[in-house]
Amino acid sequence: MIKVSIIGSGNVASHLINAFENSIEIELVQVFSRNIKVLEGIVSSDKITDNISSLKDADLYIISVSDSAIAKVSQQLLFSGRLVVHTAGSLSADVLDGKNRSGIFYPLQTFSKNRVVDFAAIPICIEAVNPEDHRTLEMVAKAISNSVFTIGANQRKALHVAAVFVNNFTNHLYGIAAGICENNDVPFNILKPLIRETAEKVMAISPKEAQTGPALRGDEIILQSHLDFLTDQNTNNIYKILTQSIQHDAKL
Amino acid sequence: MIKVSIIGSGNVASHLINAFENSIEIELVQVFSRNIKVLEGIVSSDKITDNISSLKDADLYIISVSDSAIAKVSQQLLFSGRLVVHTAGSLSADVLDGKNRSGIFYPLQTFSKNRVVDFAAIPICIEAVNPEDHRTLEMVAKAISNSVFTIGANQRKALHVAAVFVNNFTNHLYGIAAGICENNDVPFNILKPLIRETAEKVMAISPKEAQTGPALRGDEIILQSHLDFLTDQNTNNIYKILTQSIQHDAKL
Repeated sequence: MIKVSIIGSGNVASHLINAFENSIEIELVQVFSRNIKVLEGIVSSDKITDNISSLKDADLYIISVSDSAIAKVSQQLLFSGRLVVHTAGSLSADVLDGKNRSGIFYPLQTFSKNRVVDFAAIPICIEAVNPEDHRTLEMVAKAISNSVFTIGANQRKALHVAAVFVNNFTNHLYGIAAGICENNDVPFNILKPLIRETAEKVMAISPKEAQTGPALRGDEIILQSHLDFLTDQNTNNIYKILTQSIQHDAKL
Repeated sequence: MIKVSIIGSGNVASHLINAFENSIEIELVQVFSRNIKVLEGIVSSDKITDNISSLKDADLYIISVSDSAIAKVSQQLLFSGRLVVHTAGSLSADVLDGKNRSGIFYPLQTFSKNRVVDFAAIPICIEAVNPEDHRTLEMVAKAISNSVFTIGANQRKALHVAAVFVNNFTNHLYGIAAGICENNDVPFNILKPLIRETAEKVMAISPKEAQTGPALRGDEIILQSHLDFLTDQNTNNIYKILTQSIQHDAKL
């Protein structure tokens, strides 16, 4: 069994804890958090510590804290020469203190405390300098996921930016649609099957093939009537920019 | 059984044909298309006609052709005083020739020829002036869907605009992400579980509650590094506008 400890107790950390506790190939040694209360019920109390100097020996330490705290936490570790990784898509392994061997263990998914996720389907992007460390990360990742990728720093950055488009920005468009519904006394629920099918379509065909609508068709009458309808300046502007972008792509 | 005929053979028409053929409450009388070849295999040949003057008696005629052709097709009908509706989200019932009773039968979903859809889950928005016509539309809609809404012209317009955001624009963001992946030799597949979970999340919680990411957190370092990464002017601009919009909403 590979011995893993987790430093952190946020959304990613708690989903990792759960996945490791359910894996027969991983021994979850310890979980460190400054706020041990949030770990109650997630992991057995004998594994919880709020004392960073009491971290036991493990094959892998996964730092899963907010991006801005990763460097500092890695400096606070009292040991050296061990494998320490972080889970941030946007940061290089270099942010980790050089006294330990570093790497990346980036699960590409959006996590919420109250939503059950099937970790087996979540892609995990791993990176390590040392080939043996890479093998360790690969074994740990494969113990909880069927979808493990070796991704270099530049590629991970591309993925992280792309993830902003398909998650943060897409969710914001859902929010704009919810606002339009609310302002016009239409239940947002009516849009949910469309939201789901729009996502499901690109599981099977490329977004380019799946593109439809008045922008692509160049239906100026509909486009103008929608712009007239959108009196909120911000929303109107987003409609214009995305319409232009669809039409720009169609010409390529 | 309610007698229904369909005028048209596009994506919406063919999915409606399939749903009606599988309903015990509906008798699909006829399907008209100028191009009867596309209907082969979708509906039995004795129900197909390319002669608009040979349309038989029915309780409801559903015109499901391109938006720009609806008015003309409704004028070409030789009968009068019958119930004729269209399936367009963006057009009023007034575009239909006044010699027949008019209404709307708008299934709010994205249809592709090769994708099986479960019509029972698709919201159908209906509208009719005459209460008896409204009952007919309601019965027909409920025969194929569990999700039927009476939606007035203004509300339907709001829904149609909102649908552009959650379908056309969202799919375009998927396309931008696919482009970023392609340019950086990362498989777009890695993003698919995230795309799916982003959609699934708003089935349970509101988009506002589901919003995460560097824009919402105001993480200027990550935002700037993403903008530096996006050298394509159009994509860079969309990133900026949507980031500003998320931050604008967060302040409300």
